[in-house]
Amino acid sequence: MKVRRSDRLIDMTSYLLDHPRELISLPFFVRRYDSAKSSISEDLAIIKRTFNTRGLGRVQTLPGAAGGVQYLPGVSQSGATDFLGMMALKLAEKERLLPGGYLYLSDLLGNPTYLRMIGRLIAALYVDQQVDAVMTVATKGIPIAQSVATCLGVPFVIVRRDAKITEGATVSVNYVSASSSRIEKMELSKRSLPEGANVVIVDDFMKGGGTIHGMHDLLKEFEAELVGITVFAEATFAGQRVETEYTSLLNVVAVDTHASEIKVELGNYLDKLAAVTSDQA
Amino acid sequence: MKVRRSDRLIDMTSYLLDHPRELISLPFFVRRYDSAKSSISEDLAIIKRTFNTRGLGRVQTLPGAAGGVQYLPGVSQSGATDFLGMMALKLAEKERLLPGGYLYLSDLLGNPTYLRMIGRLIAALYVDQQVDAVMTVATKGIPIAQSVATCLGVPFVIVRRDAKITEGATVSVNYVSASSSRIEKMELSKRSLPEGANVVIVDDFMKGGGTIHGMHDLLKEFEAELVGITVFAEATFAGQRVETEYTSLLNVVAVDTHASEIKVELGNYLDKLAAVTSDQA
Repeated sequence: MKVRRSDRLIDMTSYLLDHPRELISLPFFVRRYDSAKSSISEDLAIIKRTFNTRGLGRVQTLPGAAGGVQYLPGVSQSGATDFLGMMALKLAEKERLLPGGYLYLSDLLGNPTYLRMIGRLIAALYVDQQVDAVMTVATKGIPIAQSVATCLGVPFVIVRRDAKITEGATVSVNYVSASSSRIEKMELSKRSLPEGANVVIVDDFMKGGGTIHGMHDLLKEFEAELVGITVFAEATFAGQRVETEYTSLLNVVAVDTHASEIKVELGNYLDKLAAVTSDQA
Repeated sequence: MKVRRSDRLIDMTSYLLDHPRELISLPFFVRRYDSAKSSISEDLAIIKRTFNTRGLGRVQTLPGAAGGVQYLPGVSQSGATDFLGMMALKLAEKERLLPGGYLYLSDLLGNPTYLRMIGRLIAALYVDQQVDAVMTVATKGIPIAQSVATCLGVPFVIVRRDAKITEGATVSVNYVSASSSRIEKMELSKRSLPEGANVVIVDDFMKGGGTIHGMHDLLKEFEAELVGITVFAEATFAGQRVETEYTSLLNVVAVDTHASEIKVELGNYLDKLAAVTSDQA
């Protein structure tokens, strides 16, 4: 039975949002709605325009037999600026301050609305690159990895400091936690990453970068390629960082435990987004 | 500037999908699209019909000054049956078998497409109830909790066996791991759950139910209420279960390490879904 345009637009929107970066052939939609290819093309033109106007990302049509349509999640510079400004205020709430100058983040990283946006922001940096997996380390990085992976339409893998029996054979590396100068161990299930995989590394918080560097080393053990590193927040670190090429959404510039003050600025994210967006134009 | 119907339908679909269970007032859409309330009502009637036909869930309009429109994620009995059948086959793949009869699940629980559907299935059981948070225990339960919480539009909280300094003050309980008979400890950040919160507990795998029971005990310490328990997979357990009221998506009936065979059946999920769905009708 033929489907009306309004119904097609609603279902196509939902379908595209659920299948980011997947190349969907036009005949798929022709069959799904029992409609002419020309009607589907018109639908897609409308969706493309609305997604663009509303800052939902790009809808790209690739011509030819191997072609189709693809939804590439994205975020506008103003949308990202507003969200990060709001997050910076949240991160600076003095109730977050824990003994030792640590910050409580679990409420932010357990909030699906924030996570969806964090995922969209980070994914927007890599959406035009070949990405096969997102990697993080347990525990707090997991929700971020899941959000980014959902947006990029790829799996995510979890590195652990205490791999359990349910991981099977693992590959491990030692790393130096730059903030504590201790040598630690992290491991990843052997079957979780194929050789040559292109990987985005994400984490919640970076100080010296030792943990991130450990994951970078793990990638080499798997003969996998690093696409990029993005953390939710970096903190000013007195020593020398072991990873220097990374993106941060937020920057915790100073934590004063006596005055109960946390100073938060935006990280280098907006510059990175601007660079990626100008490449797309 | 007035927005055309086609543009409104696309943006509203995206907006509703991004804000599950949130009551959105009609004036919000009237302003967003500079359109008449009658047009918005017509749009919503179309969206309601399409969501229903396509098994995307229900769109509910509540009349009156405090009213508005609400998207309630759902899944059809046939959609759930197909998905669980496919998952049962995946879970029975003999390559999953690990020493000791454990099963490797990390690939399934690191796949955003599966997780989206798992989240939708579990959320569908609780969508008409008051839910304030989803609870799980680190590590493998986290992606499930995040998916369910995303679908229900509520935060998720993570119980840990090894709470870190970044959790702040915690409340802990001891629990007996029924499969190993050892006494273990789990803890949850004190500020993560408000008193009286209504909580759904989820986890990846349940044998004796000791871990789940520990979370149930934690809820009592927080004076929180249990709404329900759902696990991705249960395994046949020879002893007596400490939790008897739960839903399982899949049931690992037998694991034969010698013959490398895993026997998987559907859990009791479909019955529970049928009961919930008949209440809605």
